[in-house]
Amino acid sequence: MAFNKRSKIKLLLESDKIGEQATIMGWVRTKRSNKSVSFIAVNDGSIINNYQVVADPNVINEDTLRRINTGACIKVTGKVVASQGSGQDSELVAESIEVLGEADAEKYPLQPKKHSMEFLRDIAHLRMRTNTFGAVFRVRHALAFAVHQYFNNKGFFYIHTPIITASDAEGAGETFKVTTLDLKNPPLTEEGNINYTEDFFERETNLTVSGQLEGELAAMALSEIYTFGPTFRAENSNTTRHLAEFWMIEPEMAFYDAEDNQDLAEDFLKSIISYAMENCKEDLMFLDKRAAEENAKKPVNERSEMGLLERLQFVVEHDFERLTYTEAIEILRNSKPNKKKKFKYLIEEWGADLQSEHERFLVEKHFKKPVILTDYPKEIKAFYMKQNEDGKTVAAMDILFPGIGEIVGGSQREESLEKLTARMDELKISQEELYWYLDTRRFGTTPHAGFGLGFERMVQFVTGMGNIRDVIAFPRTPGNAEF
Amino acid sequence: MAFNKRSKIKLLLESDKIGEQATIMGWVRTKRSNKSVSFIAVNDGSIINNYQVVADPNVINEDTLRRINTGACIKVTGKVVASQGSGQDSELVAESIEVLGEADAEKYPLQPKKHSMEFLRDIAHLRMRTNTFGAVFRVRHALAFAVHQYFNNKGFFYIHTPIITASDAEGAGETFKVTTLDLKNPPLTEEGNINYTEDFFERETNLTVSGQLEGELAAMALSEIYTFGPTFRAENSNTTRHLAEFWMIEPEMAFYDAEDNQDLAEDFLKSIISYAMENCKEDLMFLDKRAAEENAKKPVNERSEMGLLERLQFVVEHDFERLTYTEAIEILRNSKPNKKKKFKYLIEEWGADLQSEHERFLVEKHFKKPVILTDYPKEIKAFYMKQNEDGKTVAAMDILFPGIGEIVGGSQREESLEKLTARMDELKISQEELYWYLDTRRFGTTPHAGFGLGFERMVQFVTGMGNIRDVIAFPRTPGNAEF
Repeated sequence: MAFNKRSKIKLLLESDKIGEQATIMGWVRTKRSNKSVSFIAVNDGSIINNYQVVADPNVINEDTLRRINTGACIKVTGKVVASQGSGQDSELVAESIEVLGEADAEKYPLQPKKHSMEFLRDIAHLRMRTNTFGAVFRVRHALAFAVHQYFNNKGFFYIHTPIITASDAEGAGETFKVTTLDLKNPPLTEEGNINYTEDFFERETNLTVSGQLEGELAAMALSEIYTFGPTFRAENSNTTRHLAEFWMIEPEMAFYDAEDNQDLAEDFLKSIISYAMENCKEDLMFLDKRAAEENAKKPVNERSEMGLLERLQFVVEHDFERLTYTEAIEILRNSKPNKKKKFKYLIEEWGADLQSEHERFLVEKHFKKPVILTDYPKEIKAFYMKQNEDGKTVAAMDILFPGIGEIVGGSQREESLEKLTARMDELKISQEELYWYLDTRRFGTTPHAGFGLGFERMVQFVTGMGNIRDVIAFPRTPGNAEF
Repeated sequence: MAFNKRSKIKLLLESDKIGEQATIMGWVRTKRSNKSVSFIAVNDGSIINNYQVVADPNVINEDTLRRINTGACIKVTGKVVASQGSGQDSELVAESIEVLGEADAEKYPLQPKKHSMEFLRDIAHLRMRTNTFGAVFRVRHALAFAVHQYFNNKGFFYIHTPIITASDAEGAGETFKVTTLDLKNPPLTEEGNINYTEDFFERETNLTVSGQLEGELAAMALSEIYTFGPTFRAENSNTTRHLAEFWMIEPEMAFYDAEDNQDLAEDFLKSIISYAMENCKEDLMFLDKRAAEENAKKPVNERSEMGLLERLQFVVEHDFERLTYTEAIEILRNSKPNKKKKFKYLIEEWGADLQSEHERFLVEKHFKKPVILTDYPKEIKAFYMKQNEDGKTVAAMDILFPGIGEIVGGSQREESLEKLTARMDELKISQEELYWYLDTRRFGTTPHAGFGLGFERMVQFVTGMGNIRDVIAFPRTPGNAEF
């Protein structure tokens, strides 16, 4: 009864099966017919390439051929022969074709023509059947696997930190509330407030904005850990760089200082990009062409100088530029766009928060390579970052990538209980609420560090997709929770 | 400046460094001192074994030695020498010790004595520093990595399905609401209902109970995919088998029928268990002993016949028993506990839902091995399961494991639009809401199948931990969202 006796197209293309029998199954991309033959391009998602089926109307009956439209799912058994045309080495001469599922040409939205990205976003349940999205999600898979493989090889342990949390102490942004209360008639306290003791968790809970604090707890026991899970921001940002639900990778390492952290992050980023380049050749060649076409459509001054593959190669081969925030401010203050008042936000003094335009200038114009910016003013960074001896800065790092901006944010963590609680008091962060976090400093504290990588931004960088909504299967943004 | 120049204890134990200099960092488990020497057992989480440090009070000053308590974090540099005592091959003769962080013996809760699991759950932020939880989370990591490696090797693509969803169509259980509305003063419609168009997603949303439906969308484009993400149930179940937040692995495969699905699931389960056995030897040996001790404390009739490692080996080496629900009902109806009315729920007729006691009887008493039960009555299974030709059953499968019960649930999916919509109508499930799901049957449908593995139940099975709250770092259950 077992049905799945097929050759995956990827494996068929990679092996020499000429002269052998094979069965493929997949979805029809195109069919070209004349009186004596039909050429059917079949894709099964295992690889971007279609496999050509040659159907002789004397062998395959007319009714079957008629039902084979773009989008139909078919099972083809036949003989692998050397390909007559160009493009690939072999093709399948059909001996039998079964139409597993039809696709009405009047109704199937993915007809073989150019579709806008907006239209494809509206049919996200079908868009993975296109070349572009097939490629994007295969690359996304490869990057995710590369993350796990990288950390596993290094002896890091994967930790699942909680998604639902009562902790909002990091203050990383607006959160989504999680509740089972009846919103229409919520229970109230005597003072007229919501009585959260009647909620599922008997307290107010929300969706996590980061697994870092819990990740630190694990690192202070297992030495080197990482998280890879969904995180959430309830910010009303309708941009090409923001999602309400996105995946983060957050390694946390005991016994690492700021420099160890930078070394790890740079090696990690290069390693996963290399993995994708080695394992997604066909997809990246396709996406490289696509990016070149997109680039050509842009106004001259917005075009990137490098092609997609060139840029990936460049990042892998060059040391990232490392400099302090203070050094960066000097460069920016003396830069042409600052002097000529081309920046929207002019850099006037130390302490200014860097905007996307400044980051892009540093990465794309000044250094022309990825940049690790370190030692930011403590005022613009989170409470848990290690306080430098100058009393003004913290041992933070942001990694800036061309075309993406900030892709990694991290720091050495403050390991001193005294300094950490003093900073929390300054910022009015409750020590009582975070007793568990402070316990790691109270008992067996040690220098430690970590960083966060926004996974979708990495997928954007590697695939060259301009909009972050096009690198996650079912994007969640303000007003959008379809599928 | 780089700080992390250390030997991980795992690597030190695996290599022959005798006569060489080494630096280790980690947390003190115990210290035994006499006048002439201190023995300090250090653990860095890389492996369950401690590494012994030998400190001569003529070399290491008294004040430093005094500050080295259980729980303190230290950095030790010295010479690796052959070990005098038993247990391990080498130890470190300290030339210098730096106390990175102290642990006040009066306050540190993890003193070297027996702690109850309940107490350790209360200090989940520290429990990973114990042997048991260190082992559990290293095994959990190994299993997670094995999952990714297994599917990657087979050409499956990892898909991140949405966590926040507007779809509640599967009806798999009670859900958590996700909202940014002001619960105290929610906006109302003219009819006095909550006006969800003012919520973040402009509709009612909840946390996902399963990624399956979205996973199917991806499988109908990429052939073979899997998810591995958090899922949620807002059920008020205070049991050793239920969590409100847990991780699920859900493979979905185009071109698979029910038998292909069973073959894959069995191979997959055996493969990841084997991986853990090969890669977590020390941890599993420890957990095996622990399980034996726990077992000995149980009443005789509740004791398991096999030890932990024995059970894992047995599962890996034997074919799972495959039988239909109908066959199982016959076995149960004629079983001793049914005839002697020992079952709480007696099996009287075909159609009865199987309870945990029945599953355990089949697995632990009758077949004494994992069981794949197939072809359940359609009334007790979900709408999307393939309807068998008998008109009564669906092509479902549940995999039952000793001590755990149901560990996998899956089915061939109904690929016929006509049959699927008819079943949805019977169950009053809105076709309009699930138009995107139905589109996969409308356009290029094909036989396909999939299953879900509750990851924590698998970790329970492999580690032998009796309570599911002890195999996830920070468990979420009714009333518990700490950390």
